[in-house]
Amino acid sequence: MSKSVEPRFSIGLDYGTNSVRALVVDVSNGDEIASHVAGYPSGEQGILLDRGDPNLARQNPADYIDGMYASLSGALRAARRHPGFAPERVVGIGVDTTGSTPIPVDAQGTPLAFQPKFRENLAAQAWLWKDHTSAAEAAEITDRARRSKEGYLTKCGGVYSSEWYWSKILHCRRSAPAVFRAAHAWVELADFVPAFLTGHTDPHTLPRCICAAGHKAMYHDDWGGLPRPAFLRRLDPGLADVAKRYASRAVPADQVVGGLSADVAAKVGLPAGLPVAVGAFDAHMGAVGAGVKPGTLVKIIGTSTCDITVWPLDKPLADIPGVCGIVPGSVLPGMVGLEAGQSAVGDIFNWFVNHLVPAQYTAAGDPHANLTRAAAELKPGESGLLALDWSNGNRTILVDPLLTGLLIGQTLHTTAPEVYRALIEATAFGALTIIRRFEEYGVEVKEVVNCGGIAEKNPLVLQIYADVCNRPMKVSRSPQTCALGAAIFGAVVGGAYRSVPDAQRKMTGTKRDVVRPRKAAVDVYARLYPLYRQLHDAFGTTAYKDQLANVMKALIAIRGQVRRKSP
Amino acid sequence: MSKSVEPRFSIGLDYGTNSVRALVVDVSNGDEIASHVAGYPSGEQGILLDRGDPNLARQNPADYIDGMYASLSGALRAARRHPGFAPERVVGIGVDTTGSTPIPVDAQGTPLAFQPKFRENLAAQAWLWKDHTSAAEAAEITDRARRSKEGYLTKCGGVYSSEWYWSKILHCRRSAPAVFRAAHAWVELADFVPAFLTGHTDPHTLPRCICAAGHKAMYHDDWGGLPRPAFLRRLDPGLADVAKRYASRAVPADQVVGGLSADVAAKVGLPAGLPVAVGAFDAHMGAVGAGVKPGTLVKIIGTSTCDITVWPLDKPLADIPGVCGIVPGSVLPGMVGLEAGQSAVGDIFNWFVNHLVPAQYTAAGDPHANLTRAAAELKPGESGLLALDWSNGNRTILVDPLLTGLLIGQTLHTTAPEVYRALIEATAFGALTIIRRFEEYGVEVKEVVNCGGIAEKNPLVLQIYADVCNRPMKVSRSPQTCALGAAIFGAVVGGAYRSVPDAQRKMTGTKRDVVRPRKAAVDVYARLYPLYRQLHDAFGTTAYKDQLANVMKALIAIRGQVRRKSP
Repeated sequence: MSKSVEPRFSIGLDYGTNSVRALVVDVSNGDEIASHVAGYPSGEQGILLDRGDPNLARQNPADYIDGMYASLSGALRAARRHPGFAPERVVGIGVDTTGSTPIPVDAQGTPLAFQPKFRENLAAQAWLWKDHTSAAEAAEITDRARRSKEGYLTKCGGVYSSEWYWSKILHCRRSAPAVFRAAHAWVELADFVPAFLTGHTDPHTLPRCICAAGHKAMYHDDWGGLPRPAFLRRLDPGLADVAKRYASRAVPADQVVGGLSADVAAKVGLPAGLPVAVGAFDAHMGAVGAGVKPGTLVKIIGTSTCDITVWPLDKPLADIPGVCGIVPGSVLPGMVGLEAGQSAVGDIFNWFVNHLVPAQYTAAGDPHANLTRAAAELKPGESGLLALDWSNGNRTILVDPLLTGLLIGQTLHTTAPEVYRALIEATAFGALTIIRRFEEYGVEVKEVVNCGGIAEKNPLVLQIYADVCNRPMKVSRSPQTCALGAAIFGAVVGGAYRSVPDAQRKMTGTKRDVVRPRKAAVDVYARLYPLYRQLHDAFGTTAYKDQLANVMKALIAIRGQVRRKSP
Repeated sequence: MSKSVEPRFSIGLDYGTNSVRALVVDVSNGDEIASHVAGYPSGEQGILLDRGDPNLARQNPADYIDGMYASLSGALRAARRHPGFAPERVVGIGVDTTGSTPIPVDAQGTPLAFQPKFRENLAAQAWLWKDHTSAAEAAEITDRARRSKEGYLTKCGGVYSSEWYWSKILHCRRSAPAVFRAAHAWVELADFVPAFLTGHTDPHTLPRCICAAGHKAMYHDDWGGLPRPAFLRRLDPGLADVAKRYASRAVPADQVVGGLSADVAAKVGLPAGLPVAVGAFDAHMGAVGAGVKPGTLVKIIGTSTCDITVWPLDKPLADIPGVCGIVPGSVLPGMVGLEAGQSAVGDIFNWFVNHLVPAQYTAAGDPHANLTRAAAELKPGESGLLALDWSNGNRTILVDPLLTGLLIGQTLHTTAPEVYRALIEATAFGALTIIRRFEEYGVEVKEVVNCGGIAEKNPLVLQIYADVCNRPMKVSRSPQTCALGAAIFGAVVGGAYRSVPDAQRKMTGTKRDVVRPRKAAVDVYARLYPLYRQLHDAFGTTAYKDQLANVMKALIAIRGQVRRKSP
C-alpha cells in the first residue's frame, strides 16, 4: 500500500557551554527521534573557575570526550525504541560547538591537559569562549590590526575580541609560557571533536573549519587565509609557529573530516567509517537548523542573542561596520555567513528579576511569568520609560564592551512591570538596530525566525519584537536547532542530500503560529525608536558634537579606580 | 542663690499638610516645653480628593479652626505640668502654614465652605498647596507675564506654577464660576489663621503676609506690589476685583495682626489680647527656627526639599535664574528671602523602596534602614552608577515639571543598594547645583543647616551631602523647626526680643555632631559631579547643540496620548 522507503537517520552532536547533546534525526523530514544530554562533570557546571580572577573560564577537554560517549550512547539507546531505526541506517554525523574555544594540543593532537604535569594547569585546559582574561592582548591585536594594511578587522566589526583565538593564545604566551612552549598547536573545539571522532592525529593536516577560522582567527581569502606571518610575529614570534602547525586552509561544514574510528564506533554502537562532517559553531548550525537562507534572519534568543543570516557569494556585499563576522562558507557553503548579536538579552531580564523585583512578583510562581503577565497589560508608550540594552556592553553595531545600561523617564509612579517591559523593548530596539544595519548595507531581511529558550517561552517578547521591528516573528519548529543543524550536515556528508539547502527544505520548518505586528503598537514604537536612536548615538558614538560618549566610560574608569583602591 | 528671672513663653502654631501642631517654647533659650498635634478629620488624612481628578487636593477650612483649638488646648494642658509655666507668662503667638493655600471667603472673611450651599462644593474649600488642577491657567499666566514689561517672573524663577495663588483663582473662575462670583476675596491660609485668632473680619484691611504675597502672588515693590490691574484684567476681568478686596500692602511676620480674641482666648485658656504675629509659610519659618542668616542655607529635607537663605537688603542682589522665590522680608524682616528646592528627595527613596526592592531588604525591619546599611558599605564611584533626581520634575534651577528620572551605568551585577545609593547621590548633586547657582549670583553659602525627617534619621544621606557639596552638614537642634520659627515670631511680637535675629541667637542652635566631608569621597564626587552636570545640561537645557532636551518631553507626550486613548 504505502511507498516503502527504508528510513535513514543522521546524528547531530551539539557542544554547549555546560553539556553536550546528541540528537538522532530522520533525514527525510527532520523528525527528532531521540536525544540525550550529558553534563560536563568538571568544575562548576562544566566550567573551571579561578577564585582570584572572575574573567577566567576554562574546561577540561576530557569532559568533551566523556560527554560524547555518554550522549551518543544514550541517544542511540533511545533511538532503538523507534520503529525503523537501526544503527546501520545512520548516514553521517555533524558537530557544533561553542567557540572560540581553543585547546592546546601536542603533535598528535592530544590535549596537553591529558599529560600528568599539566593536568592541574588551568592554562593547559580548553579556553572556553567566555574566558575574558585576554583583554589586554585583544586591545593590542586590535591596535596592530588597525595599523596594518590588510584590513584584518573589516570582516569582524572593526574590533578584535578578548574572546577570540589569537587573544587567548597570546595571553597564554605571556602568562603561562611553559604551556605555550609545550603546545604544538591550538585546536578549536569545533575541530577537536571531529578529529577525535575520526582518529585524526596530525593537527597540521586536520581540516580546519571556516566558521572558527573566519569568525575568530582573522582568516579570509582577501589576505590569503590566516593573518600573514609577519603580522603574527610582530605580536609575538611564537604566534607565527602556532599558525604553521595547524591546517592552513579552512573549509565549510559540508566537507568530510573522515570516517568514524573503529574505536569510537565500537564503543557507541555505530558502524565504523561513518562520515563525520567538519564542525562549526553552535549558533551557526542553529541558524541552519532554523532554516536560514538569503533574506531570512535567524535570531537565537537566550541570555544573549546571536543573529545570523547569509548572502549569496556572487552578489556584491560591502563590509558592514559593526557586524562582528562576515565569512564566506561559515554558515552555508557557497554563501557568506553574517553574524551579529546582542551581548545581553535574557541576562538583562534575569538581572532585573534577581536584583530589583519586589516580593509581590517573586513570592509565588515564576517571577518572569508574573512580570510578563503584568507587563502584557501595559500599552506601548504608556509607561513613559525608555532603556538602552547595554548592561553587558554592545556587540553589534557599536562593538564596545565598555557601554552600560540606561533607563530614562521614571517618575514617582513607575512600577516594576513597567521597567521590565521597558527592558524587553530596549532589547527589541537593539534587534531592530541590527536589522537596519544589515539593510543599510544591502543585506535583505525579509523574514525573521526565532529560536532559543526565550523565543519558545515568552510570547510577550516575540509580540514586542514583532511590533518594534514591524515584521512577523516566526518560531523555529525544532526546540534544539543547533543539534538539528549539526544533523543536517551529517545528512549531507552522508549523501542523503546533495546540498545543505536541499536538506534544510525537508528537515527544517517554523511553527504554524506566527506573531504578527499590531498596527497601533507599531505606530507608537515608530515614535519611540527615534528616541532610542538618539540615546544610542549620543552615548554610543561620537556623532554628537557636544559629546556624551564619555559618560559611561568615565563612570567605568572611576569605578575601576575605586575598586582597585578598596581594601 | 540663683538670679531669679520670671520665665516667659511663646507659642508657635504650625499648619502642615495633614495636621496642626502647637508648640510652647521658653523664650529665653528656645526649650520646647510642650507640644500637641491635631490631625485634620476631613477627607483622607485631611485632604479632600476627587476620584475623577488626581490633581485635585482641597481641605475643609473647618479643620483649621478645630485643629487650632485642639492643638492649642492640648499643648497648654501639657505645658501646665512644666515648672514655671503659666498662661499669663505667654507673650505672643506666631503662625506658619502651608501655601499657596488660598481660601475663598465672604465679605466678613468667613470661608464660603461654611455656607450650607457650598459645604459640599470642592471649589469652595481651601485649595491646598499641592492642588495641580490649574496647569493650563499657570501656563497662561506664565505666557502673559513673560510678554509683560514688568518682569513679574524675575522673582519667581521665570515660571508661574500651578500650585500658586493666581493660577488657582483663575481656574476657579473658569471651572466653578458660582464659587468665584460668591467669593468676596481669596485669603491665604497663612493670613486666615491670624485673622481668625484675632477676630479680624475685614479682608480688605487684613495684614497680608509678604511670604505668601511675594512668593506666590507676584507681589514685589519693583512693580508697586501686586500685579497691575490691567495685567490681571487681561487674564480675567474678575481677577482685578479679587486683588482689590484684600490688603494691598504686604508685611513681614514680625508685625502684629492684632490681639487674641476674647472668644478664642477663653476657649483655650490664654489671656485675651495676646499679640498674634503675621503668618508665613512653614518652610520659611522652619528656616528661621533653624537659625537662617546671611551665609547660612537651611535645607528642609523631607519628601521634597526646601532650601532657604537670606541676603541683606542693602547689598546688591541680581535676579537669580531658576530660583523660585526672591522676596524682601519673606523670611527675616530687612532681608531678602530666597527660596529654592528639589521636587522630590525622600519621595524618590520611597518610590524605590515601594516598587523596586527585593524581599531580602523588605522582609524584616525597615527597608530604608536595611538599604542604607548596605549602601553605606559602598565607596563613592564604586557602583559605576549615576542618576538624575528628576522623578518629580525639577523645581530649581530648571523650573520644569516635565522632566523625569534617569539612571545610567547599570550592568548585570548592579544591586539594589547600589541603585539606592545612586539615588541619594543624585539628590546630593541636585543640592550642590542649587548651592552653586546661589554662589554664581553672589549669594554666599558658608554654612548648611539641615532639618526635616531625613536629616534627623539618615546619617548616610547627610554624609553623602557633605561629601558631594564639600561642606560640613549641620543639623538643627530642634526636631520641629517650623513651629519653633513661628514661636520665635510670637516672642518678637510679644516684646521678648527687639528683632528676629536677636531671638534666633538665643532660641535656635545646631546639634553638636557635625557631619564633615571626607577627603577621599570629596575627590571622587568632584569627578562624578561634572558627569551629572553633563546629563543635567543635555536633558534639561538647550545648551547642547545636538539636543537631547526633547527626549523626556517626547516620552511624556507619547505617554499622555497613549493613556488618553486607553479604554
